[in-house]
Amino acid sequence: MSSRAPHMIAPASDVLRARLDRARRAADAADTDAVLVTPGSDLQYLIGAAGGSFERLTTLVVPGGDGTPALVVPKLEAPGFAGVPTEELGIELVTWVDGDDPYQLVADRLGKPGRVVVSDFAPALHVLGLRDALGSAEQGLAGPVLRELRMRKDASEIEALRKAGAAIDRVHARVGEWLRPGRTEAEVGADITAAIVEEGHLHADFVIVGSGPNGASPHHDVSDRVIEAGDVIVVDIGGPIPEGYNSDSTRTYAVGTPRDADVAETYAVLERAQRAAVEAVRPGVSAESIDAAARQIIADAGFGEYFIHRTGHGIGLDVHEHPYIVGGNDLTLEPGMAFSVEPGIYQAGRWGARIEDIVVVTEDGVEPLNTRPHELVVLDS
Amino acid sequence: MSSRAPHMIAPASDVLRARLDRARRAADAADTDAVLVTPGSDLQYLIGAAGGSFERLTTLVVPGGDGTPALVVPKLEAPGFAGVPTEELGIELVTWVDGDDPYQLVADRLGKPGRVVVSDFAPALHVLGLRDALGSAEQGLAGPVLRELRMRKDASEIEALRKAGAAIDRVHARVGEWLRPGRTEAEVGADITAAIVEEGHLHADFVIVGSGPNGASPHHDVSDRVIEAGDVIVVDIGGPIPEGYNSDSTRTYAVGTPRDADVAETYAVLERAQRAAVEAVRPGVSAESIDAAARQIIADAGFGEYFIHRTGHGIGLDVHEHPYIVGGNDLTLEPGMAFSVEPGIYQAGRWGARIEDIVVVTEDGVEPLNTRPHELVVLDS
Repeated sequence: MSSRAPHMIAPASDVLRARLDRARRAADAADTDAVLVTPGSDLQYLIGAAGGSFERLTTLVVPGGDGTPALVVPKLEAPGFAGVPTEELGIELVTWVDGDDPYQLVADRLGKPGRVVVSDFAPALHVLGLRDALGSAEQGLAGPVLRELRMRKDASEIEALRKAGAAIDRVHARVGEWLRPGRTEAEVGADITAAIVEEGHLHADFVIVGSGPNGASPHHDVSDRVIEAGDVIVVDIGGPIPEGYNSDSTRTYAVGTPRDADVAETYAVLERAQRAAVEAVRPGVSAESIDAAARQIIADAGFGEYFIHRTGHGIGLDVHEHPYIVGGNDLTLEPGMAFSVEPGIYQAGRWGARIEDIVVVTEDGVEPLNTRPHELVVLDS
Repeated sequence: MSSRAPHMIAPASDVLRARLDRARRAADAADTDAVLVTPGSDLQYLIGAAGGSFERLTTLVVPGGDGTPALVVPKLEAPGFAGVPTEELGIELVTWVDGDDPYQLVADRLGKPGRVVVSDFAPALHVLGLRDALGSAEQGLAGPVLRELRMRKDASEIEALRKAGAAIDRVHARVGEWLRPGRTEAEVGADITAAIVEEGHLHADFVIVGSGPNGASPHHDVSDRVIEAGDVIVVDIGGPIPEGYNSDSTRTYAVGTPRDADVAETYAVLERAQRAAVEAVRPGVSAESIDAAARQIIADAGFGEYFIHRTGHGIGLDVHEHPYIVGGNDLTLEPGMAFSVEPGIYQAGRWGARIEDIVVVTEDGVEPLNTRPHELVVLDS
């Protein structure tokens, strides 16, 4: 099987080295003896390679204090990490072959740790394998440690997110070429998928074309439903650019005049709610206050029960990451945090609408990274 | 984001119901109070839908004894399970919204379990969330419970694997159309990817085109290396068909006469080793004996150190699943088990070769599901 990380652009080794150092300090601050990072975006963040995610254990061991980090990797996966500047990063490469016990290899390096944390998306197989090999060590999640780093994007990361935002905006600008009555959602989705690549993404990670009643299902994909005149259509699309950072933007379209009489009034509420939430973003306010800004307006208009998800999610190397813009999250926003603002109103069985921009917190306010107009885009039917 | 399960063909509900009943009995037999199945192939096996795999908890709760199974799912992901015949399967649908504690929802259904198991690929986030909510319950892996079911394929599953095998054989039959000096591995890989879909797969899951020295890296992907006359090229390809079952087959090609003088003799050893391993497959022998059958021949010829991976892996809804054909696995093979037999010999820096067939254990022997010739396929240069 392939390791599936085609043509990524990795950060310079001094950037990676600084991240590793910060990870180590964050571990120390969290009274954690080691951070165990399995394949995925955390690994990509720290060493510039995401690795594959299979049943054989691959893990970066970042010990607290002055210990030497190690990349424990199956010998046959090691070539996939050939581009990682392990020497410059001071990382020891530890390979293992089928028949070895990789969990014990990790344990042997750590002695008797009191607390270790593992990647949030490490498979249970490895989580429990490490638990058993590490004896009495308390096991926690690496997310809370690493998110403190990843949540605060540096200038190069924000530049990458800007580039991703501009790329997906160019795709939305072309949606009118493909969205027509008589075509299926899947046909439109195929055109959008191709355009996502043409406009500079590695691939399309998700393409939602939710027409008519399908628009009322926030995580709809595409279907064979034929688009009809009068449909309202939610188009939520994105994917990673070569730097590894993701785009994610939603606009709502209509082909001809919407058949449901309540669309215009409801959509106006949604537009106000989304704008109010974006305008509420600045350093020093809480994540949940942004959610509340959108939710209050929708609730006041009587649509509260139709807004069935949180207002947003952080974005970066993952499409969904911290900070989450949701009730109960009292995290204080800081410059460099990037997330979606995407309220929606869903009328089950009839139609739905959502407006989504990625925004980044600046020193004194907010920079939206998606700049297409927010109005319902009415196309020819 | 999309739930990414396009156009799957789900088993009939009586098949699913029988699987759920077997899972429950297997849990009882393993002194396990509940099997917690998160999105992925285990979920697809049990309810016919794999679900999405995001940071919000989705889990099927299969209690032992006579408890009612429940599908705990975020409200906004519920439409993705609309095709699951929950009523016929006796599954209660339990939805939750952002702000709820889904781990507590699971715990509330289970009372005070002594032991629960979670899907092998459940993310640590949920593994530890469930651990904390379930208090003193011992936590183990669902794999050892569910693999007892999934390892023994029924007739419909074997038929699906046959169909997948025939589809990938048709792709290998066409490789000569694309593999030519002057083209890059990536260009050849793109043609193969398209053909994998044309020949009946949902998509290409992996496309390895390892030319020259790249062939010595077993998990190579494709690269921009330009294929040259005299190259030996490992082509390892596969993907899922609409039934969800996977193909996986490797053949080794050469463009013109191999430049390395040791290819013919080495390849002959590999061919003998692969054939011996396939011929050793029958009910009643151990998984490791199949590995040993291949390894012994390769070691006797002096190439032992160049065969750097296990001989094979089970295959089904996952490309890699039990049984693993590896030293130390004394599992006794039974009719209905399906796995790869894929020894390889890797000459670092020069060339590599691998031959891989999927085989299924029959009542009295073995049925190979890939039937393309095993010889080094010498193409025009």
